[in-house]
Amino acid sequence: MTFSFDDATRVEAVGDGTYVGHVNDGWDIRGNANGGYVMALMNSAMRDASGRTDPISITLHYLAPLPPCRFEIATEVIKRGRRFTTVSASMIVDGRTAIRAIGAFGELADPAQGLHHVDIPRPDLPPFAQCRARDPHAENIPLALMSKLNMRLHPDDLGFAFGQPSGRSLMRGYFAFADERPIDTHAVLLAADAFAPPVFNLIEVPGWVPTVELTVHLRARPAPGPLSCSFEARAVQGGMFEEDGVIFDENGVLVAQSRQIGLVPL
Amino acid sequence: MTFSFDDATRVEAVGDGTYVGHVNDGWDIRGNANGGYVMALMNSAMRDASGRTDPISITLHYLAPLPPCRFEIATEVIKRGRRFTTVSASMIVDGRTAIRAIGAFGELADPAQGLHHVDIPRPDLPPFAQCRARDPHAENIPLALMSKLNMRLHPDDLGFAFGQPSGRSLMRGYFAFADERPIDTHAVLLAADAFAPPVFNLIEVPGWVPTVELTVHLRARPAPGPLSCSFEARAVQGGMFEEDGVIFDENGVLVAQSRQIGLVPL
Repeated sequence: MTFSFDDATRVEAVGDGTYVGHVNDGWDIRGNANGGYVMALMNSAMRDASGRTDPISITLHYLAPLPPCRFEIATEVIKRGRRFTTVSASMIVDGRTAIRAIGAFGELADPAQGLHHVDIPRPDLPPFAQCRARDPHAENIPLALMSKLNMRLHPDDLGFAFGQPSGRSLMRGYFAFADERPIDTHAVLLAADAFAPPVFNLIEVPGWVPTVELTVHLRARPAPGPLSCSFEARAVQGGMFEEDGVIFDENGVLVAQSRQIGLVPL
Repeated sequence: MTFSFDDATRVEAVGDGTYVGHVNDGWDIRGNANGGYVMALMNSAMRDASGRTDPISITLHYLAPLPPCRFEIATEVIKRGRRFTTVSASMIVDGRTAIRAIGAFGELADPAQGLHHVDIPRPDLPPFAQCRARDPHAENIPLALMSKLNMRLHPDDLGFAFGQPSGRSLMRGYFAFADERPIDTHAVLLAADAFAPPVFNLIEVPGWVPTVELTVHLRARPAPGPLSCSFEARAVQGGMFEEDGVIFDENGVLVAQSRQIGLVPL
């Protein structure tokens, strides 16, 4: 069997470090591809070009919204090092650069090995069954992405969906796939931007808050089971917001950290 | 009069988006250029190529240590947008890529304008005069950079310099130039990596902890006066550390956030 996420993030190598593929329908928010899905598309090409197993640090600049379309990703291997291979890539749509990315790829070490100091609490979540799914057809906005995922939000953070923002710029919940695809580091990239922006709990009708830049650091390969995630926007200022995310696996191991900067209405 | 930092970060445009310059002596830690200094060098070329005023988000991958040398920086303007201009750049030394960068450049808005929500405390620092400078010639390691700066560390975080790490992976202090150069967004990039790594307060003889990737988000133009800075490594795992920095100006305004990932001995 093939899983929906693998179908949707498949790219084909056509030589000279170039890959082709499609922005699939169904991985969007209001018609434009989700930022985490786009990061996974870039990872499909960049990781393949690197010949390594895991994205370690990956940064995307989002230069254009992406409705379903055919794309080309041109990769450039900048350096093949012992520890990491560093790769740059451009997603080209209709002759225009829609995404530019850079990343370091390698093999994540066992998180239990060596010096260990993690001073980040695991997201404080009620049990999975007590968290709430968003209805992909409700809220008057098409949330196609939600039908692909088994995401559950902390009940305290769901107010934004009903016109009652909590006043705390926080979004916590579980991430899993609807078709139970196992979660690897490739899928963690989707999780890093699949949740509703925490600023939605600050401002009532925020509209679209486009990401300018997103960086994800992978810190361990996840154990089986849903991811526990927490996203917080601690600095909204000058028409921009910063958002930090932490992602843990079922064993309480830190799997990834994310940070993005994006635009809010001034 | 010219200031030392401007002399040391000057680049010359030689056409086709290419710039030349020198990694100056005196901006190093143990002989290799400091990571914040290198980011400022890249900014000199990239910001010029963008035609904009401020770096908004800038990411560097550090691929080789940089002793004093002549370099070339090849820039590529990826997109000139209304709000931002996105630029990629490579620093080439002896025919090899030493640094690869990507950034969005624009004009920072007045931080008092529009929605404002900053839930990050200003670094908790004693008055400037009660904080401590590091001796550039002491500690058995040449810290040339320290002679260019008027940096003062929180007394509680200075233990690492005397073989007594505090046990908290925290490094707080003030940042100013020895020659009193005013601090603009260009100089903030130096401040983002000028402090000793907070992991030095966790492990006694850490040796060199090379940065793999550093991203800085500029959030406001700083008011005159020293910057108040705090850096914390909250996640050391699997042979890598993550370090988050926050930088405030004298008026208590958030000026920048930084995040890097680097290597620690496994």
